Amino acid sequence: MKLPPGISERDFSQATDRMRDIVGKDWLFTSDEDVLLYRDAYSPFLGEPEEYIPSGAVAPNSVEQVQEIVRIANRFKLPLWPVSAGRNLGYGGSAPRLSGTLVLDLKRMNRVLEVNEKLAYAVLEPGVSYFELYRYLREHKLKVWLDCPDPGWGSVIGNALEHGLGSTPYRDHFDAHCGMEVVLANGELMRTGMGALPNAPTWNTFKYGFGPFISAIFGQSNFGIVTKMGMHLMPEPEAAQSVSISVPRREDLIPFVDIMAELTNRRIVDCLWEIASPILQSRDPEVSSLLAKSDFTVLDVENLGRAKSLGYWGTRLWFYGPPKIIDANWGYVQERLALIPGATFALADRFTFPLADPSLAKDDPMTVPNGDALRLSALGIPNMSVFALGAAMRQHGHIFFSPVIPMSAQDLFKAEEVFRGAFKTLGIPWFGLQPFAWYRRNFILLFIFPITEEVSANKVLRANLAKLIRIAADNGWSEYRAPLVLMDDVMNTMSFNHFALPRFLEKIKDAVDPNGILAPGKSGIWPKSLRKVRP
Amino acid sequence: MKLPPGISERDFSQATDRMRDIVGKDWLFTSDEDVLLYRDAYSPFLGEPEEYIPSGAVAPNSVEQVQEIVRIANRFKLPLWPVSAGRNLGYGGSAPRLSGTLVLDLKRMNRVLEVNEKLAYAVLEPGVSYFELYRYLREHKLKVWLDCPDPGWGSVIGNALEHGLGSTPYRDHFDAHCGMEVVLANGELMRTGMGALPNAPTWNTFKYGFGPFISAIFGQSNFGIVTKMGMHLMPEPEAAQSVSISVPRREDLIPFVDIMAELTNRRIVDCLWEIASPILQSRDPEVSSLLAKSDFTVLDVENLGRAKSLGYWGTRLWFYGPPKIIDANWGYVQERLALIPGATFALADRFTFPLADPSLAKDDPMTVPNGDALRLSALGIPNMSVFALGAAMRQHGHIFFSPVIPMSAQDLFKAEEVFRGAFKTLGIPWFGLQPFAWYRRNFILLFIFPITEEVSANKVLRANLAKLIRIAADNGWSEYRAPLVLMDDVMNTMSFNHFALPRFLEKIKDAVDPNGILAPGKSGIWPKSLRKVRP
Repeated sequence: MKLPPGISERDFSQATDRMRDIVGKDWLFTSDEDVLLYRDAYSPFLGEPEEYIPSGAVAPNSVEQVQEIVRIANRFKLPLWPVSAGRNLGYGGSAPRLSGTLVLDLKRMNRVLEVNEKLAYAVLEPGVSYFELYRYLREHKLKVWLDCPDPGWGSVIGNALEHGLGSTPYRDHFDAHCGMEVVLANGELMRTGMGALPNAPTWNTFKYGFGPFISAIFGQSNFGIVTKMGMHLMPEPEAAQSVSISVPRREDLIPFVDIMAELTNRRIVDCLWEIASPILQSRDPEVSSLLAKSDFTVLDVENLGRAKSLGYWGTRLWFYGPPKIIDANWGYVQERLALIPGATFALADRFTFPLADPSLAKDDPMTVPNGDALRLSALGIPNMSVFALGAAMRQHGHIFFSPVIPMSAQDLFKAEEVFRGAFKTLGIPWFGLQPFAWYRRNFILLFIFPITEEVSANKVLRANLAKLIRIAADNGWSEYRAPLVLMDDVMNTMSFNHFALPRFLEKIKDAVDPNGILAPGKSGIWPKSLRKVRP
Repeated sequence: MKLPPGISERDFSQATDRMRDIVGKDWLFTSDEDVLLYRDAYSPFLGEPEEYIPSGAVAPNSVEQVQEIVRIANRFKLPLWPVSAGRNLGYGGSAPRLSGTLVLDLKRMNRVLEVNEKLAYAVLEPGVSYFELYRYLREHKLKVWLDCPDPGWGSVIGNALEHGLGSTPYRDHFDAHCGMEVVLANGELMRTGMGALPNAPTWNTFKYGFGPFISAIFGQSNFGIVTKMGMHLMPEPEAAQSVSISVPRREDLIPFVDIMAELTNRRIVDCLWEIASPILQSRDPEVSSLLAKSDFTVLDVENLGRAKSLGYWGTRLWFYGPPKIIDANWGYVQERLALIPGATFALADRFTFPLADPSLAKDDPMTVPNGDALRLSALGIPNMSVFALGAAMRQHGHIFFSPVIPMSAQDLFKAEEVFRGAFKTLGIPWFGLQPFAWYRRNFILLFIFPITEEVSANKVLRANLAKLIRIAADNGWSEYRAPLVLMDDVMNTMSFNHFALPRFLEKIKDAVDPNGILAPGKSGIWPKSLRKVRP
């Protein structure tokens, strides 16, 4: 068993004994086989002593139990790593950043406390998964949608707190949060926003509250443990329409992104979209053989694309709403993009709601046949389709590197050049950019690296990821989110004025958690006792 | 001269001497006639010794000067009250909460540092007013709109930091902020979000950054002095269409608000709208004589409304975008509201952009003829029309009481009953509710009370406002913003778990500003040395 630094076995055992008294013997885990379940299934340290391993886990089923556990942790200075459902795969799963930290597993707290259909919000406990919320909405025949990421087994609250993302107009999950209940590091209970006023009906409708918008600091941080949270939901639309667009030439990316950025900022386009390359991603044998040549030109690719009716760039969009509004928005998108010669437009699926399709209209989303994961998510149906991908790739797991760049073609071309060069230097096969327009005005470039079962390969991967973060930072690009192993690397790029921001965060950390018991190392924020000198 | 508590005249004079050395003799003010300009023109303490009066003011013209001033203030423990343009009328103007605080006037820092037309954002210094930004956009022929409140002389940054509001889809000004530069209480410079990474091109495009979304806590707070800020702008639409809607019966409010709330949550309606009563607000003599009767019924009013073609309830909306999308959205709004028997719909003004109307298309917005203030603001043209109102009412000034309630008719009826009763008890003539739909899922009830030149009347008004806050709180309603004189009253209603939220804010305050020099008392947050026992 790995104990946290500075904690004796005797203290650990005393602390966990008391916690066991609180939660009952079935909900305090310290045996190796139990702890195994809390390790990161995708750990990039597989089989290495550096793996981030918890000392155990405790699973309360009430806010009062969480408070008691935090008080005990404080007394023994035993660090806790709160997880909602522990499904943060690719970013660390349920493992803590600091080995020996005790996982505080909130999965048992999975009550849907309220859904207000008219005002379109839900109040949830952290253990509620997308699947569970979906089932609840179906069961109660409520005409509101959750926006889900893929996969759907994760926690709605946990995902939002991690600044997770989905695909509908409500895809910015953190933005959709409204009102929190937080257990502070001293065990006290606090409600944010209007929730600070007893019995406020606006707790989950008005997020700012009075004074500073303080709930904002409980995302991607270690300042408190969220035990209840409001989430704004999307009123069910009459229809959802999927469309696809392509443009023929590489240089078309410039007007394409300019127009799409403007349409997105105006919310005429209001969904997740991605820059793809139909021709470069095609499996057509003629395309493959062209791309295998050493001397093909952009013009060769564009010409073959024209012959095959495959654009150089393309994307898919979803429109939601009454059919006439969908048609007007889609008509305008075509009108604007038609300025690019050779642009193509195609209608794909249209769904109407409530869903008539019997294969999709299931009360239990797990029984919906796995199809195109994005399609199901775009319809507000949580699913696990994305795992079909990983299984097909026969990898142990994966890890994300997710830099953010401005939403412009010039920045994309520059990022392509920088990262292609970096990959070459680092000896990584170049697999191209995957730019996702989750946020307005930005692309997130989602690089997904496979984790293997080979220690040496994982070591190289970790070193490469740290280098990529540095290379990105040298170009002014940082990440919207980071896996455990890279959190320090990312925070250590935040060097403006001698690391003024990280130092400010540490000041807050010391003030609100003087014993440093909440999630040490989360987002690179360490308590005083564990703080290292910055580079 | 009023000195802050605990500061000797000698220390004050030494501190201000040093500050004078930094800013030059013309920019440090302590004479009574200079200080007069920094008093709250609408003070509810007019002519009373309790008036919140600054000891003086200092007006730096650079970030470095701000840093120097803060360092001096720290040394002498002299409190500072930062104001951007000082136009926060109705909420305190440029006056500090604590008499004797030195106003830190940032009006001279009024550079538009950058406007990115394609990504639709601006980077501003705090002294930039809506008028100045508008002139800049016109001068550079940039097709982006600012969203302005009324009036337009205020600071874009200051208004956003106070959670101020406008009328277009970008009306939530704090939500539109992206990336800050902040002078901390120790004089250090910090950049938030991606700005913490040197030379990040995403500083003003991606607001969360990595780790906790910390810039959120610099609004309505006293944790730092914002010296630069990004603001997202709205791409210029092709057209703007104004429409009006009415429904005939009092009970129609229920379906009307339900449908409008849903349309707003779907952003099919995406503008400020207000619940008005065409019949009750009419100046028609027949209406007045009916309302003057002691025994008129709702049915009488409804019947007269039908005869006069005046709805019992009504609102005005603005749609922005290409004409076909405007028409589709407006068509759908009518389709939905037509379910209410007797609902009426009317098109009002339509404008196309760039503005052709020569009376509106002025580079200097001050030369635009004053018209309907809301109309100009709805077109992104800052103006001063709202002052025509105050002048007409011949009042000394006004003060706001702005509780937030959920967006439902039931809550409106309840609020009407509660506040009508409260007004009666307090002896205030009832002037009805003014519910504004600035935020989705909520109404802000804007009560505007006139400030007179009579001390006794103002004393009664202050006592009444404190009572109204208490009455609202007893019903679970709090304010989105509060004037200086009521900040403590509002924060003192935040009593959940023995004032856990205010105590948490104080913990942060003490950590980031141990000498308590930044805006003591702002939003009811006091530094340790000045903290009183909570009720």
